[in-house]
Amino acid sequence: MKDLESLSASQAARALSRREIKATDLLLACLDRIGQRERVVRAWVSLGKENALARAKELDRGSIKGLAHGLPIGVKDLFDTYDLPTSYGSPIYANHHPFADAVSVALLRQAGGIILGKTVTTEFASFKSGATSNPHNTSHTPGGSSSGSAAAVADFMIPLATGSQTAGSIIRPASFCGIVGYKPSFGKISPVGVKSLSTSLDTLGCFGRTVGDVALAAAVMSGDLELANIKDLHNKPRIAVCRTANWSLVQKETSAALSLCGFAANKIAKGALIDTTLPKFFDGLALAQSRIMSSEMSRNLIFERIRFPKKLSPQITAQLSEGAAISYESYSKDKAYAREARALIEELFTNEFDLIIAPSAIGEAPASKSNTGDPVFCRGWTLLGLPCINLNITSGPNRMPVGVQLIAGPGQDHFLLSAARTIALGLTDPVARDQA
Amino acid sequence: MKDLESLSASQAARALSRREIKATDLLLACLDRIGQRERVVRAWVSLGKENALARAKELDRGSIKGLAHGLPIGVKDLFDTYDLPTSYGSPIYANHHPFADAVSVALLRQAGGIILGKTVTTEFASFKSGATSNPHNTSHTPGGSSSGSAAAVADFMIPLATGSQTAGSIIRPASFCGIVGYKPSFGKISPVGVKSLSTSLDTLGCFGRTVGDVALAAAVMSGDLELANIKDLHNKPRIAVCRTANWSLVQKETSAALSLCGFAANKIAKGALIDTTLPKFFDGLALAQSRIMSSEMSRNLIFERIRFPKKLSPQITAQLSEGAAISYESYSKDKAYAREARALIEELFTNEFDLIIAPSAIGEAPASKSNTGDPVFCRGWTLLGLPCINLNITSGPNRMPVGVQLIAGPGQDHFLLSAARTIALGLTDPVARDQA
Repeated sequence: MKDLESLSASQAARALSRREIKATDLLLACLDRIGQRERVVRAWVSLGKENALARAKELDRGSIKGLAHGLPIGVKDLFDTYDLPTSYGSPIYANHHPFADAVSVALLRQAGGIILGKTVTTEFASFKSGATSNPHNTSHTPGGSSSGSAAAVADFMIPLATGSQTAGSIIRPASFCGIVGYKPSFGKISPVGVKSLSTSLDTLGCFGRTVGDVALAAAVMSGDLELANIKDLHNKPRIAVCRTANWSLVQKETSAALSLCGFAANKIAKGALIDTTLPKFFDGLALAQSRIMSSEMSRNLIFERIRFPKKLSPQITAQLSEGAAISYESYSKDKAYAREARALIEELFTNEFDLIIAPSAIGEAPASKSNTGDPVFCRGWTLLGLPCINLNITSGPNRMPVGVQLIAGPGQDHFLLSAARTIALGLTDPVARDQA
Repeated sequence: MKDLESLSASQAARALSRREIKATDLLLACLDRIGQRERVVRAWVSLGKENALARAKELDRGSIKGLAHGLPIGVKDLFDTYDLPTSYGSPIYANHHPFADAVSVALLRQAGGIILGKTVTTEFASFKSGATSNPHNTSHTPGGSSSGSAAAVADFMIPLATGSQTAGSIIRPASFCGIVGYKPSFGKISPVGVKSLSTSLDTLGCFGRTVGDVALAAAVMSGDLELANIKDLHNKPRIAVCRTANWSLVQKETSAALSLCGFAANKIAKGALIDTTLPKFFDGLALAQSRIMSSEMSRNLIFERIRFPKKLSPQITAQLSEGAAISYESYSKDKAYAREARALIEELFTNEFDLIIAPSAIGEAPASKSNTGDPVFCRGWTLLGLPCINLNITSGPNRMPVGVQLIAGPGQDHFLLSAARTIALGLTDPVARDQA
């Protein structure tokens, strides 16, 4: 058997449930890897080694608790944990100890997951970056806001981590770090106990190294345990490639990744791949998402704005001021537009396609530690509430990973995971195929 | 001028903004009233007298902060407050001090509101009652879950209080206590910082003694400040009386209240009042709401279930077990049914009516302190996410108040408040007319 820290979450879960490996050994392997790499990657805000080891021993002795039995898990430091401090990436919460776990964290523990530590988030999951590096090249950003979660999973420090996306905070770092990132349908995972930016956009999800990994984590976090049993595709899906209204921004490597994924998808598509340009009506999605987010943030962070203005970064202060300047009327118009767009995309999914393939990001991870990259290719899909998954496809001019995202219709999470696994199997790059 | 504690929130706000009365005097009048009545009403979990007095003095000296300038406000103890303990009606949180205010509380403070104290909630806003009595007859329940908020406003202890509704926790206690209770459209007020039962149902709102009061509070809590400027009705609305699928449960006094409200509504209706029976399809609403609520509660309270099972009441333990026993598949079916029902009711509001009049509760407040009454007449409207307002209409055989609720189409909060005020003006009972 290869080094334990290299096992995917699904491989490890299977071996653990059969008692072929010990939770303690897997945890120690992860801790070793963290010991070797954390100095340069800086994925973690805190580690709870003792608690984690005690829990691992308990799990090795006791019965199998559930799907996540014995898996070491990184939790984005936006999620409350009762036994580890939770700072939301902000000095305001430097010494904050929540009373309770976030619901998704408690569900992971109940299923036998071991919460190993808290991973770096940008400030309140917005744009001010933390200290984390991209493990593929430490002068590049891992993306944000789920920076530490994506970097830790990509660097084999842990097999699974939690994330959240309000604009592009799961799909973008997954693409930049070359792993699988999954943002389920809006509302699929209870957001309770996770610091909120924008109530109508915040969506919880997870990172893993295979489609099966994220399916497993999302199954536990949502309570929809069937999600972990990825089904074979019964019918060939209608698959559309969508360059989106922001295509002019795209770099060559993303264009290439889209093509390569298209080849794999074409093998399983009903008929030939559809080249779709969404109706003009959708062109305003990214802008509307950005305004709704800023407007809701200006209210959701009102306590911090009033009581700790000096402890907010200039970046987020500017974003909050912008948000506060948006009139309620204009906010309502954006919300009404989003509702219409959701109805329209549902129709398109019914009538024209079952799956969309689209860019995850503009290109490779920017060669910067302070710029987490542009979420423009994620904003619209988040606003539409659709389930999205990033697959790692190729690499760019700096040998950094480049992914694409697959997007399914509203609530079609089971289908999305099936399609993602099948498409990954059709990729020609053997590393990319390993995601299946 | 009459006793300050008898002023409605809108009257007080006007007088405060013109410096005709002092925030300090209003607060002292409220504290006096609380001093006289709290021993029997038991509306409060905690009072922050010193902080409130300091804040009132500050507001009397400084500029006018906003719409709630100088108004003493009761906050349901389900809402986090940074300066008052917050126990969610549960011994698990007996010594819990949140770091931050709930967003809606911070917005009330920013607008000049004085958070006077925390009002009694049932356990986690579910069915296990607190100590509060109905101020009209202390052997009767005030209703729940927003028991203390409704009782305190009805008893003139405060002009305004916050509430939340997952099944019938605003409309029902408002009806039982004879005041105005307003549950805005789902999502209108940010739920952040309020302990969540059921993410897809929890809706924040407020209590006052007039339509203008709840409009003022909801304007501040939502950020939609225009909500406070209740407009005259431009066109005569199409008004439907809806007995709902649960009409057989109704007591005589509720039937009478519906008729009386119907008379007032008929005066302003376009054409004659419509007697609507909703399509059969809607008959399952109350049951679906109940199942969705229990299922989501079983996840949202997972931390408490696992770590503090003995500190949960038998009532909520039973409800959580029921919820946990619901399969995800069956939960998904209920959610899909709710989505369909929302689309269908929107069509009905477009094609057939603008406003619905329906029972708020089965009848008067039950003559019991432990039974907060049945929310069956609220469940469906909450599941549909529609804005609802309770008007006090008449009294029952025990001389307890009886209200009815007005319900508008999705997002039609401005219209609902206009219609409610106009209908209140048309009521013949002078006390009921005072709600306008």
